[in-house]
Amino acid sequence: MAPGFHFSPQISAVLLVFLALLSFADGGRLLVVPMDGSHWLSMRAVLDELRHKGHEIVIVAPEINVHVKASENYVMKTYPVPFTKAELEGHFLAFTQEIFEERPFLERFVRLRERLKNTSTLLLATCTHLLYNKELIRYLEGSQFDAVFTDPFMPCGQIIAEYLSIPSVFFLRGIPCGLDYKALQCPNPPSYVPRLLTTNTDHMTFPQRVKNLLFSLLEILLCDFVYAPYAKLASEFLRREITVTELLSHGSVWLMRFDFVIDYPRPLMPNIVIIGGITCAQKELSQEFESIVNVSGEHGFVVFSLGSMVSEIPMKKAKQIAEAFGTIPQTVLWRYTGEAPPNLANNTKLIKWLPQNDLLAHPKARAFITHGGSHGIYEGICNGVPMVLMPLFGDQMDNAKRIESRGAGVTLNVLEMTSKDLSDALNAVINDKSYKENIMRLSALHLDRPVHPLDLAVYWVEFVMRHKGAQHLRPAAHDLNWIQYHSLDVIAFLLAVVLVTMFISLKCCLFCCRKCFCKKGRVSKSRKSKAE
Amino acid sequence: MAPGFHFSPQISAVLLVFLALLSFADGGRLLVVPMDGSHWLSMRAVLDELRHKGHEIVIVAPEINVHVKASENYVMKTYPVPFTKAELEGHFLAFTQEIFEERPFLERFVRLRERLKNTSTLLLATCTHLLYNKELIRYLEGSQFDAVFTDPFMPCGQIIAEYLSIPSVFFLRGIPCGLDYKALQCPNPPSYVPRLLTTNTDHMTFPQRVKNLLFSLLEILLCDFVYAPYAKLASEFLRREITVTELLSHGSVWLMRFDFVIDYPRPLMPNIVIIGGITCAQKELSQEFESIVNVSGEHGFVVFSLGSMVSEIPMKKAKQIAEAFGTIPQTVLWRYTGEAPPNLANNTKLIKWLPQNDLLAHPKARAFITHGGSHGIYEGICNGVPMVLMPLFGDQMDNAKRIESRGAGVTLNVLEMTSKDLSDALNAVINDKSYKENIMRLSALHLDRPVHPLDLAVYWVEFVMRHKGAQHLRPAAHDLNWIQYHSLDVIAFLLAVVLVTMFISLKCCLFCCRKCFCKKGRVSKSRKSKAE
Repeated sequence: MAPGFHFSPQISAVLLVFLALLSFADGGRLLVVPMDGSHWLSMRAVLDELRHKGHEIVIVAPEINVHVKASENYVMKTYPVPFTKAELEGHFLAFTQEIFEERPFLERFVRLRERLKNTSTLLLATCTHLLYNKELIRYLEGSQFDAVFTDPFMPCGQIIAEYLSIPSVFFLRGIPCGLDYKALQCPNPPSYVPRLLTTNTDHMTFPQRVKNLLFSLLEILLCDFVYAPYAKLASEFLRREITVTELLSHGSVWLMRFDFVIDYPRPLMPNIVIIGGITCAQKELSQEFESIVNVSGEHGFVVFSLGSMVSEIPMKKAKQIAEAFGTIPQTVLWRYTGEAPPNLANNTKLIKWLPQNDLLAHPKARAFITHGGSHGIYEGICNGVPMVLMPLFGDQMDNAKRIESRGAGVTLNVLEMTSKDLSDALNAVINDKSYKENIMRLSALHLDRPVHPLDLAVYWVEFVMRHKGAQHLRPAAHDLNWIQYHSLDVIAFLLAVVLVTMFISLKCCLFCCRKCFCKKGRVSKSRKSKAE
Repeated sequence: MAPGFHFSPQISAVLLVFLALLSFADGGRLLVVPMDGSHWLSMRAVLDELRHKGHEIVIVAPEINVHVKASENYVMKTYPVPFTKAELEGHFLAFTQEIFEERPFLERFVRLRERLKNTSTLLLATCTHLLYNKELIRYLEGSQFDAVFTDPFMPCGQIIAEYLSIPSVFFLRGIPCGLDYKALQCPNPPSYVPRLLTTNTDHMTFPQRVKNLLFSLLEILLCDFVYAPYAKLASEFLRREITVTELLSHGSVWLMRFDFVIDYPRPLMPNIVIIGGITCAQKELSQEFESIVNVSGEHGFVVFSLGSMVSEIPMKKAKQIAEAFGTIPQTVLWRYTGEAPPNLANNTKLIKWLPQNDLLAHPKARAFITHGGSHGIYEGICNGVPMVLMPLFGDQMDNAKRIESRGAGVTLNVLEMTSKDLSDALNAVINDKSYKENIMRLSALHLDRPVHPLDLAVYWVEFVMRHKGAQHLRPAAHDLNWIQYHSLDVIAFLLAVVLVTMFISLKCCLFCCRKCFCKKGRVSKSRKSKAE
């Protein structure tokens, strides 16, 4: 026997697992490819928590961006992009200004489509400049990451995961054209799962179901329009043909920011982890805001914000809103960076930045006026504050519909509403007991969960890092084509067998009958001749 | 203003929720309608935990049963049934004896079918005697339960939940004929979700997919055969027409005893909670067993049990097995109540009852010979012990296939195997490193979860008790019929629209062409006549 230590196979196996876990105990290395905008704000919470758990985090972001900023919690690697800060901000400003412009529907639609195309081009250019930044890619190649953490809304992170052959965790609210469920091989019946922008609920009339099915067909076109360029880019970069669906199907775990307290129950897959309400952490209000809300007296206060992207609106609209605020006894905290409307009442404070969740958590918060972004509505639910919703674009109309259909808020059309509409809506949600009761019921359900969504998100990122993916959660459906998945080949085969069997049986019967009748014929004939 | 206390609507709502939670803090009242057999053993663990959390538990069980016994942890309400203890035990004994009888396939099948029919009749009689026990039902009506906790394998518990109008939590491994997923409205594609008794994996060849589809059609017949009498019973008892699918669709939360570490990834619904491995709690081995396993030396020991239902086997088979055990150096702990085979080797100990999980958790456990019941295989995985599987009936063949397809065990046909087969299989799983490595990998994945399945089960039972159900997790699919669910009406409508449009367009074209050609015809005719 050769000299040295020898262990039984069992002890070796246990030791191997133990050593693997030990090497991980120091913390792993996570590569993050974020999306800019409000998507980033909730992702950052997960990253901060991961950093506290000892992981090294490297963020790859364009030099020019709106929200993604350096922090002591992570290493920031930036890359140049072919646009300036002013151009980017101008782009977003124009986008939000257009929402408030009163134009004929068709013109609005064409302009919006144009703007979407521009955004799409901007994102694609960003991705291309990342992938073809040789120095950065060389750095990533040499960095031994355990996993990629990314928002698949822009599939750039997954292209890199694929290139580096490391597993990935997705963090998203959803992909607008249903690509998420397609890539997950998750059933998505249009009969009761409402499609984006339809403002359908899960209980639809026949015309609504027709609309929903048509929208789900349109989604395919939209997906192709937005994501086909990424397929081309990925295929070139990875030097093999790949579709965006296939690319995204390799995501190990999908952390999805929804919750069935508001979103409609639907089929799921084992690698979907639901983390709606992740940004709702109970923190104490700062002294500055505490003193503002405390002077609001017994009537309490109202929080008004149109989200991180819209901080100012046209003066005409601002005046209308200010007029409505003047009619209610509550103090209003309005997140606004634009010029103050001249008719601003004494009860209304314009503030450049609001600690939104902490304000909503205050017992004196009476109502929340929001654009219906997913972060906002979950903060409203979490803190049990009834809402007035002014949806502007994207999934906001659908979010608003969800809150309204649960009797926890009132939706207004921001373009068409009058001062009185807003003041009536505020009076309703503040004084009609049913809104508060409904939101409190939703809140109780939402907060009653075995693990906080933030901890759950952190857990699953670490899980993928520890186990180098989550292959055991990947359904075999990914290895079937459309015909096989729907068993169409099997059904065709079984039908053929049935038809052939029926045909042969029929032929046999006919043959027997003919034999029988012929015999009879001959018999009767011979009898006949005998009789003659 | 009328005298008395007055609160603002907000404070009233908060107070209401607070009072509701406060009244629950003392503990709720849970009605349990269990299934006998191994199903009960894991359910008991949840009940013990719920009792420790202060809930009052009332169990309703037949006077005559195998495993459900009184305990200080719960109130036991029994009801008379039309069979004796001896009859019940005789029934199970005959069932297990038949498994080991070598008969022609067809005869075995006919006898097994007969035996299944008898079991079915026995269960139905039990349910009928519960529902028509007036005294017991009166007691239940007056008892103010918060929820029913039941195994829907026998839908009796849900009939009572329906009768008392209280929510229910289901606790199950599955319902053999796919009724579970049908009642959940959960997609169940036969192209990659293997059906019971097919021993298919999730990756199937074309013939296997044909078999799988045929089995999923057969399941419908099986469901009808087994569950139609319950629909009749429920309709009579509840005095309204109800199917078993509809009955079970009212289950608020389904605690399902599987885990994707072994079971194949498949679509889920929001009210499915996965709790596979619930019986695997790390406990210390008793002194008695500790001393037995410690004498096993460096070779360690093997655990052999065929489950709670099979404690003895025919002498011929027992001798064969004893012979195989004589060839391995490990100590064997064999759970056996029958007569000791004469060729029993010194290394084999026959024991009437084994602390199975605690033995498997011992570092000297080298292999686990099991019938492949779901509890057993999860205890094997949890403790990382490679397995030799001898499936006997029901889902055991499928469980064995799952372990084998993961390279964590070897399956033997208990009827056809020889002594050498068993001894070879044991040598393989003990000495071939790959089996240990594979089971350790599965174990590491299985144990890596944010909440222990037992805590998760307890959490969701309490959730349903707290919130009087989980209506927000119920998909709208339940309100659609088959045609609507599959959007067949919408597709037919859209096809009709397309066809009518095409027809009208064609008619228009034809009309225009005819007009055109006629004109030309007339023109050329007139020209012609002019030319003449």
